[in-house]
Amino acid sequence: MKQPVLSEWLLTQLSQSRFPARMPNHRRVYEAIRRAITEQVLPSGCRLPSTRSLATDLGMSRNTVLTAFDQLLDEGYVAARTGSGTYVAYNQPDEFSKNPNVIHSLNPEGNIIGLSRRGLIASSTQNNHPSDHSSNHPSNHEVQPFTPGADDYSKFPFELWRRLLNRQWRMLDPALLDSSHDGGYLPLRQSIADYLRVSRAVNLKVDQVLITSGTQQSIDLCARLLTDHNDCVWVENPCYWAARRVLEANGLQLHPVAVDNEGMAPTTQDFRVKPRLIYTTPSHQYPKGMVMSYGRRRLLLDYAQNQGAWIIEDDYDSEFRFEGRPISSLQGMDQDGRVLYLGTFSKVMYPGIRLGYMVIPPQLVAPFKNGLYELQRPGQVMIQAALADFIEEGHFASHIRRMRQTYGERRRLLQAALAPVANAGARLSPVDSGLHLVVEFDSNVDDIRVAEMAAEKGLRVYALSNYCVGAKQEKGLIIGYAYAATEHITHYGNILANVIQESLRKQALA
Amino acid sequence: MKQPVLSEWLLTQLSQSRFPARMPNHRRVYEAIRRAITEQVLPSGCRLPSTRSLATDLGMSRNTVLTAFDQLLDEGYVAARTGSGTYVAYNQPDEFSKNPNVIHSLNPEGNIIGLSRRGLIASSTQNNHPSDHSSNHPSNHEVQPFTPGADDYSKFPFELWRRLLNRQWRMLDPALLDSSHDGGYLPLRQSIADYLRVSRAVNLKVDQVLITSGTQQSIDLCARLLTDHNDCVWVENPCYWAARRVLEANGLQLHPVAVDNEGMAPTTQDFRVKPRLIYTTPSHQYPKGMVMSYGRRRLLLDYAQNQGAWIIEDDYDSEFRFEGRPISSLQGMDQDGRVLYLGTFSKVMYPGIRLGYMVIPPQLVAPFKNGLYELQRPGQVMIQAALADFIEEGHFASHIRRMRQTYGERRRLLQAALAPVANAGARLSPVDSGLHLVVEFDSNVDDIRVAEMAAEKGLRVYALSNYCVGAKQEKGLIIGYAYAATEHITHYGNILANVIQESLRKQALA
Repeated sequence: MKQPVLSEWLLTQLSQSRFPARMPNHRRVYEAIRRAITEQVLPSGCRLPSTRSLATDLGMSRNTVLTAFDQLLDEGYVAARTGSGTYVAYNQPDEFSKNPNVIHSLNPEGNIIGLSRRGLIASSTQNNHPSDHSSNHPSNHEVQPFTPGADDYSKFPFELWRRLLNRQWRMLDPALLDSSHDGGYLPLRQSIADYLRVSRAVNLKVDQVLITSGTQQSIDLCARLLTDHNDCVWVENPCYWAARRVLEANGLQLHPVAVDNEGMAPTTQDFRVKPRLIYTTPSHQYPKGMVMSYGRRRLLLDYAQNQGAWIIEDDYDSEFRFEGRPISSLQGMDQDGRVLYLGTFSKVMYPGIRLGYMVIPPQLVAPFKNGLYELQRPGQVMIQAALADFIEEGHFASHIRRMRQTYGERRRLLQAALAPVANAGARLSPVDSGLHLVVEFDSNVDDIRVAEMAAEKGLRVYALSNYCVGAKQEKGLIIGYAYAATEHITHYGNILANVIQESLRKQALA
Repeated sequence: MKQPVLSEWLLTQLSQSRFPARMPNHRRVYEAIRRAITEQVLPSGCRLPSTRSLATDLGMSRNTVLTAFDQLLDEGYVAARTGSGTYVAYNQPDEFSKNPNVIHSLNPEGNIIGLSRRGLIASSTQNNHPSDHSSNHPSNHEVQPFTPGADDYSKFPFELWRRLLNRQWRMLDPALLDSSHDGGYLPLRQSIADYLRVSRAVNLKVDQVLITSGTQQSIDLCARLLTDHNDCVWVENPCYWAARRVLEANGLQLHPVAVDNEGMAPTTQDFRVKPRLIYTTPSHQYPKGMVMSYGRRRLLLDYAQNQGAWIIEDDYDSEFRFEGRPISSLQGMDQDGRVLYLGTFSKVMYPGIRLGYMVIPPQLVAPFKNGLYELQRPGQVMIQAALADFIEEGHFASHIRRMRQTYGERRRLLQAALAPVANAGARLSPVDSGLHLVVEFDSNVDDIRVAEMAAEKGLRVYALSNYCVGAKQEKGLIIGYAYAATEHITHYGNILANVIQESLRKQALA
């Protein structure tokens, strides 16, 4: 590497690397050069530029560069030869120099050889993910207005949260530093029990509450403890794709059950395919949004009790209901201990908190506590303690109230902006809760194409057909409004309404 | 419930409940009474004692109790009738009053009906766990001197750690609040890469490092992405029981391979049982402690490459090596990209941090990043950022140095105290690293009985036979010294040495 090139490379490194905020410049220069040496960008024996010229190139004081060089000298990464400058002296052990050949062998289906069948399903970005049309794009995880599942956590009271966390760390209860053996931090489980009793009519004693690191882990634990390989699981169709992936990764056979306006609607034929597990979203069907009727709830509960099947009730966003009375949970109607109720804090707090909870039937408490510990080794009890304070001191309830207002307003604005799509034959579904809207199309519409056209305008929405299990019969768009700023939602909503109308008209003409 | 009894009950609740430290007394009283009402300890219509008599019974000011009552009145849990006191007014919705019958039905094997076969294995406290002899005891998770796997984190610089965490929360980079899509926080992955290159001769680029929530999750991810149901996995015999449990929970067939003093020692017969995965602890065999020889390493690597098998190298405690040169990793010798290297921070930092890492072959990076996100939804990036600072600022290295000294001293003291067991025919294994010692017995000794006798003296040690897969051929004790305080280790070590000698002599006479 020539010397001007090294300066260029270092400048890029220094601007790109995410060094800790308070790291002094000399340390950054040291780190960047050290990495260049260990990663053999600068091979052994190569001469470094003079400190003076490097300082000029980097726009730093010569002292800064000298300090970095001194440290490199001290640690033996470089050596100084009198009169001829500084050289890379780092001798990597023999094993280091042999770089494994990067193997890019693909099998005929284009998959990397070596993954298992279930591994291919679990690790694919191509299968089942509703953003299929953009999954090869590097910005797959970049959030844009209307991305379903992206929540707005900018309004979360982080300063208060920081103080609660910091207080726990000051008190330093040693019990909070260990991994969690007993289903989670007891006061948090008590707070959750109180909250669920009052807000969701869940019928429980505190011992039935287990803290997990989120809904994904909760579903996984249910699948692992309650089912065996090749068992059948009923899922709603369309269905929450992430749940589907975990169930499939556990070797389960998915049996899709269609939904109608009363929720999951099993037919006589469905009843013949006996499930070990039933995965359902009764308060707010995901993604279509309807509430399961009382009759359907009784039907499911009775069937589960008859068959000895278990029901997973995923109550993923019931905090955000904008009209009408809160709906009771399915769990609250269950008299036979067949329902496992799941909830999450990631939507109300912030996604990275990774805390969720399960309410399990009394007879499963002991094995679930053990299974949770053995399979997932939960910890982060400090954060559980701060969350217990956050709830007990009333901040959780007031944050939900605030966000319910914010999200409710965004929903009204988006509904208004999307109203014109009715002119092109699309139907805005009458959902009164949750964090997304559904626009439904006729079954001959290519909804993936509509989503692609929205993506071209910088709007990420998901095609409803990608949520279907088996035949892609339902067509439409899933449109999240939680992340879009209130002041921009009408603007983007109008653009989206135009895209939908234009795309539907083009498809009708074609 | 009569009134004196209510005071008793409240006093018990107030002393047992783990309320947040700064919660005022009136709030505690309010919470305890509210729970008594919602959990129907106090049924609807029941009369509460007067505030004056309750205040006397609880040893609190009357004002405190009045404030609690006022809040209960405000929220409608109780109602005041003029002249006749305060009554429970809370009417639970209909669903609440029906309590699910607690089902304690057991099948003929004594298992709760409803768990799956794999669920029974994963959630059992009876199978495979080395502390079998005490697993029914409520103190199963209580740490005592010599408990293997329990580390001493009292010397961890928590005040410094709190400040690093608090600093990250003050800076509040929004990227650290989301779940982690891309294998973990990049600067932490860089720090780990630097550390592993230098300390463990691991051959890697930073992109190969993924952050997980611990070794249990790392093994789980490997099993899910690289194996299918009923595939064969080689494990060492004896073997780390927690790894074994995760592998079994994934439906894998365990094939035990005996270890000798060069580590895992596959025979011609073993080679016929072709594995998809090989799980090994080459730097420090768990639990016996030997280092895998160079020849054995080459053999395993060549066999894996020939068979297209994957090797999991679990380098669980290589930070704590007390004599001789550090041993290179198996991964550093791998030229074909067949080794997945696992490490953890839970032993060096504190168990509840739940952070571990994997180094995976380059060709697996993309599917593993996706699989990690889809199956485990990692988050807690704030803690990853604080840990990156902790390492970059040199605290990690100096903490390891300190703990290495501490643990090394404990090990020497324990070895000295246990030396007399040789008189009874036991052998102290010559291990020079790790956090436990192994005392080996002749194969006719009942090592579970020896462990039970130690438990009677308040010392938890594990029987070696419980680590065996299949026939329990190896006998001995696993004795952790990480948790025992240096000043007590000789005292407890002498007691243990006496127990061992006494037990072996008794068994020889019987």
